[in-house]
Amino acid sequence: MWLKPVVLRDADLTKRLSAETTVAWCREAILAAHRGELLAPPRAHADLGDGRFAFTAGRLVGRWYGYRSYDTLPTETGEQTVVVHSEQSGRVEGVAVGKEIGPMRTGAIGGVAADALAAPEASTMGIVGCGPQAWMQLWAINAVRTLSGVSVFCRDPETRRRFAANASERYGLEVRAADSAEAAVSGAQIVVLATSSGTPVVDTGAIDGSAYVSTLGPKQIGRAEFDDSLARRAGLIVTDSLPQLRAYDPPFVLRDTEHEKRIVSLGSVLAGDTQPRPGTLFCSVGLAGTEAYLVARLLGL
Amino acid sequence: MWLKPVVLRDADLTKRLSAETTVAWCREAILAAHRGELLAPPRAHADLGDGRFAFTAGRLVGRWYGYRSYDTLPTETGEQTVVVHSEQSGRVEGVAVGKEIGPMRTGAIGGVAADALAAPEASTMGIVGCGPQAWMQLWAINAVRTLSGVSVFCRDPETRRRFAANASERYGLEVRAADSAEAAVSGAQIVVLATSSGTPVVDTGAIDGSAYVSTLGPKQIGRAEFDDSLARRAGLIVTDSLPQLRAYDPPFVLRDTEHEKRIVSLGSVLAGDTQPRPGTLFCSVGLAGTEAYLVARLLGL
Repeated sequence: MWLKPVVLRDADLTKRLSAETTVAWCREAILAAHRGELLAPPRAHADLGDGRFAFTAGRLVGRWYGYRSYDTLPTETGEQTVVVHSEQSGRVEGVAVGKEIGPMRTGAIGGVAADALAAPEASTMGIVGCGPQAWMQLWAINAVRTLSGVSVFCRDPETRRRFAANASERYGLEVRAADSAEAAVSGAQIVVLATSSGTPVVDTGAIDGSAYVSTLGPKQIGRAEFDDSLARRAGLIVTDSLPQLRAYDPPFVLRDTEHEKRIVSLGSVLAGDTQPRPGTLFCSVGLAGTEAYLVARLLGL
Repeated sequence: MWLKPVVLRDADLTKRLSAETTVAWCREAILAAHRGELLAPPRAHADLGDGRFAFTAGRLVGRWYGYRSYDTLPTETGEQTVVVHSEQSGRVEGVAVGKEIGPMRTGAIGGVAADALAAPEASTMGIVGCGPQAWMQLWAINAVRTLSGVSVFCRDPETRRRFAANASERYGLEVRAADSAEAAVSGAQIVVLATSSGTPVVDTGAIDGSAYVSTLGPKQIGRAEFDDSLARRAGLIVTDSLPQLRAYDPPFVLRDTEHEKRIVSLGSVLAGDTQPRPGTLFCSVGLAGTEAYLVARLLGL
């Protein structure tokens, strides 16, 4: 009993979770949620004054249940926790603590989505945003497509230059810092928006009509990194969690628009119930239970 | 960095948390919440199908923030987790995993309440319920009053006999198994209701008019171990958390009764803002943040 729970730290995760493995496991999780085997309720919150805790729970019925907790207080590290219980015993089998698990699974969900929704031959990518989320999107999408050129833009020239240099070195790719968001996405077959902006970050007209577009950043009424022009150009709109999208408060930016009813789940695409189409828009909201799924997989539960 | 987080298990808690210490620390926490230094929002929940996660969070402003998680799935162990972050770094400083922390802090809150609200010379105690919560109430109240006689009742004769024998041995007290709830509480100066019953468990008329009464079990409309006759006899009604009481869904059993407005916080009694009175009713709801407070105290945060 003294061996439980297993405690995993960032180094354990980054060592054992390659992009390929993480994408494959997130794909399993999304399909399990689609089949109703993985319960993934909307996030719960607890108020902490000038910030709050968020809890994203999940349960693989008959196997395990768990959650990730994170907070929005302005701390130095922003560490998060994942807890996984065995369903039969109730015992806490594993605890993961660190900063990596959140971005890794969000990255991997982005990899699953790009694999399912971008053209198989897509090889050019434009990224708006230079933070950890942008970095992990590249990490995951690089594992599902053979990329030949990547452009990245964010407001600070030094930050985008560093992102491009680091990414070139890490992945052996041609990664270029662009002078504008429009220049970054122009001609790209895969477009990733991964900012914390509350207003649209790119002119939709600059995006190729058949490009696959993924949005990671704010997507609530009054605070969104895109507007409905991005939905209008999309032949298909997909999200990793319809319940999470519907639970947004303030509401999802496309709520009560003509586009709202067109949104389908990524699980339905993976299951073959929905056919992918050129020009798809993917709204990443963070399917609950996916972090616990990764930790449970690492523990062999 | 490899030493963080500290992981505490039940044996660490039971070894280091005496009843006296746990009551003293819970008293600090309740006073800190009363002064607004400890933020203690109502519980958050996440649906898990035939059960759910509950998260009780807290933040000692400027020092730490954390939570306890527990669930209502029918597992063998019912293990819970407490996570505490340093406020400045955001780092997870400690994780406690096990079954003891919840009952220990609920017991200790009961000890704080009995110490503040029962007559100083109270020495006789009647307990209805024989589960872990009842056990921990005795553990804590025994630390704040010199008990001369304790009676206990629950429906199963063997269970109450065993509770009485174990408690007599553990605390060197005269603990007697009673034949009915009324017999258990009759003549007692301290009455503890700690059942999981959805209907009243004792005839209020059997309780001495000046006795201090504490209720630990269900207290929601449609499912409560007491009815408003217990409130009617009470000169004062106290709870450890007014926000938690107001957040109950279904609502608190005294909601929209003449008694609702009379309820005051235990913190206000400890601070001297409310004077204790004979015949007080204490409604224990579990002030959030108290479990994290205990773990933070153990870690010296």
